[in-house]
Amino acid sequence: MAAEIQYVHGYSAREADRLADQANTLSGLLHHDTVYPPGSRVLECGCGTGAQTVILAARNPEARIVSVDISADSLAQARARVEAAGYRNVEFLRANLFDLPFGEASFDHVFLCFVLEHVERPAAALEALKRMVRRNGTVTVVEGDHGSWYCHPRTEEASRAVQCLVDVQARLGGDALVGRRLYPLLAEAGFRQARVSPRMVYVDSSRPELVEGFSKNTFIAMVEGVREQALSLGLIDPDTWEKGIADLYRATEPDGTFCYTFFKGVAAR
Amino acid sequence: MAAEIQYVHGYSAREADRLADQANTLSGLLHHDTVYPPGSRVLECGCGTGAQTVILAARNPEARIVSVDISADSLAQARARVEAAGYRNVEFLRANLFDLPFGEASFDHVFLCFVLEHVERPAAALEALKRMVRRNGTVTVVEGDHGSWYCHPRTEEASRAVQCLVDVQARLGGDALVGRRLYPLLAEAGFRQARVSPRMVYVDSSRPELVEGFSKNTFIAMVEGVREQALSLGLIDPDTWEKGIADLYRATEPDGTFCYTFFKGVAAR
Repeated sequence: MAAEIQYVHGYSAREADRLADQANTLSGLLHHDTVYPPGSRVLECGCGTGAQTVILAARNPEARIVSVDISADSLAQARARVEAAGYRNVEFLRANLFDLPFGEASFDHVFLCFVLEHVERPAAALEALKRMVRRNGTVTVVEGDHGSWYCHPRTEEASRAVQCLVDVQARLGGDALVGRRLYPLLAEAGFRQARVSPRMVYVDSSRPELVEGFSKNTFIAMVEGVREQALSLGLIDPDTWEKGIADLYRATEPDGTFCYTFFKGVAAR
Repeated sequence: MAAEIQYVHGYSAREADRLADQANTLSGLLHHDTVYPPGSRVLECGCGTGAQTVILAARNPEARIVSVDISADSLAQARARVEAAGYRNVEFLRANLFDLPFGEASFDHVFLCFVLEHVERPAAALEALKRMVRRNGTVTVVEGDHGSWYCHPRTEEASRAVQCLVDVQARLGGDALVGRRLYPLLAEAGFRQARVSPRMVYVDSSRPELVEGFSKNTFIAMVEGVREQALSLGLIDPDTWEKGIADLYRATEPDGTFCYTFFKGVAAR
């Protein structure tokens, strides 16, 4: 399917590792406050390979979770991951976000993480999901914002390499800067009482687990993942790219710093 | 004195109001955890018009605070502000950060807020301050980082207007992006156990007090303050400037968002 082929981060083994690193490193920061009452019916939309699904299942052992994704391969990985972790409260289903096989108000809560950034019409996606939620049920949306990234030392080439990721994602119809838009998107989709909170990751050498788990293995790995696309689209020349990536690693040295912000929005139907 | 004339934000009445708005809006975020034991001798370096001094005095009524600044006019305003607020635990003294009239280890703690951004050699400034602190005493540094700013909707002109503030400050020998450098600067100055934490301000229309107190009256007011300098230095043309400022205000409307991050570092001698 086109949507599979065009996923900006691809479907490689390294990417699967990156997603797992990202989920583990950021689990507390992003998900500590996603706790649903026992018995809740929760729809996870765009579960991918299940990196967030295991966290959701662990934090909500008495919720009944239905996780959908458009990619059969990803779903198979997600299912295996959740089974390996020993959770039995998740069902998996292949489905398109805009054509979900559920009736109106079938769920108490909807959860989506790193999904809207890849969707061409994020407000329409939220509207479609709103119909799945009962009155006073909630939607929880977690997204990054690559425009929130900066580092020290800073160089033009590092910024240009990161911009390639933003541009490649834009060419695929996505928006890598969607985090800052969560509040207006939730309002546009007709949700009420939206509350958005930033979740900033600040990294210096006093936090070595973040230097490895976030700066290198999550963020720089994600930028490196679009190398071929960026070069073949002519967004950057190879020398600038190599220098940009080297400069990103330079900012992970003992006198460097690295910043990035995720956004989490919760709103009611 | 040259240092007075060249203060990037100037010394106008509007600027004094802006500093007060900024201090009130951000007081909790930036200063809630600056609490010194009773009897502590605290040096506040670069107190300006006392916007932070009153907060420091209020939170530490039993500390003995000495606040210094290079500007006699600012000191007079600071003294009046602190007296009007009824605090009696602050002494004021005119002095240069690099030539302080105190002996080695005269203080238990040093505090500086929005000072390093204006200093040409911030690591040397921290080294000079380190000599004022006793062994195991602390330094607390609070700085902004204008490169951490972004908004929605975003436009090229808004970014260029903000960049003018960064560029004007750089021409005066300052660094408006110093926040991200606090950790390496503290290390370079020889402080130990540095711990830096970001203090992010996220603004959407569900937080009207921040729309007014931060986005408009602190940040946009600060950008607007360099209009004449930016135009006369040829950093931007008038049309682009006006559009940039209008776009910044656009991001304070109900469907806009606004982000900025301060950094706070605490380290021991």
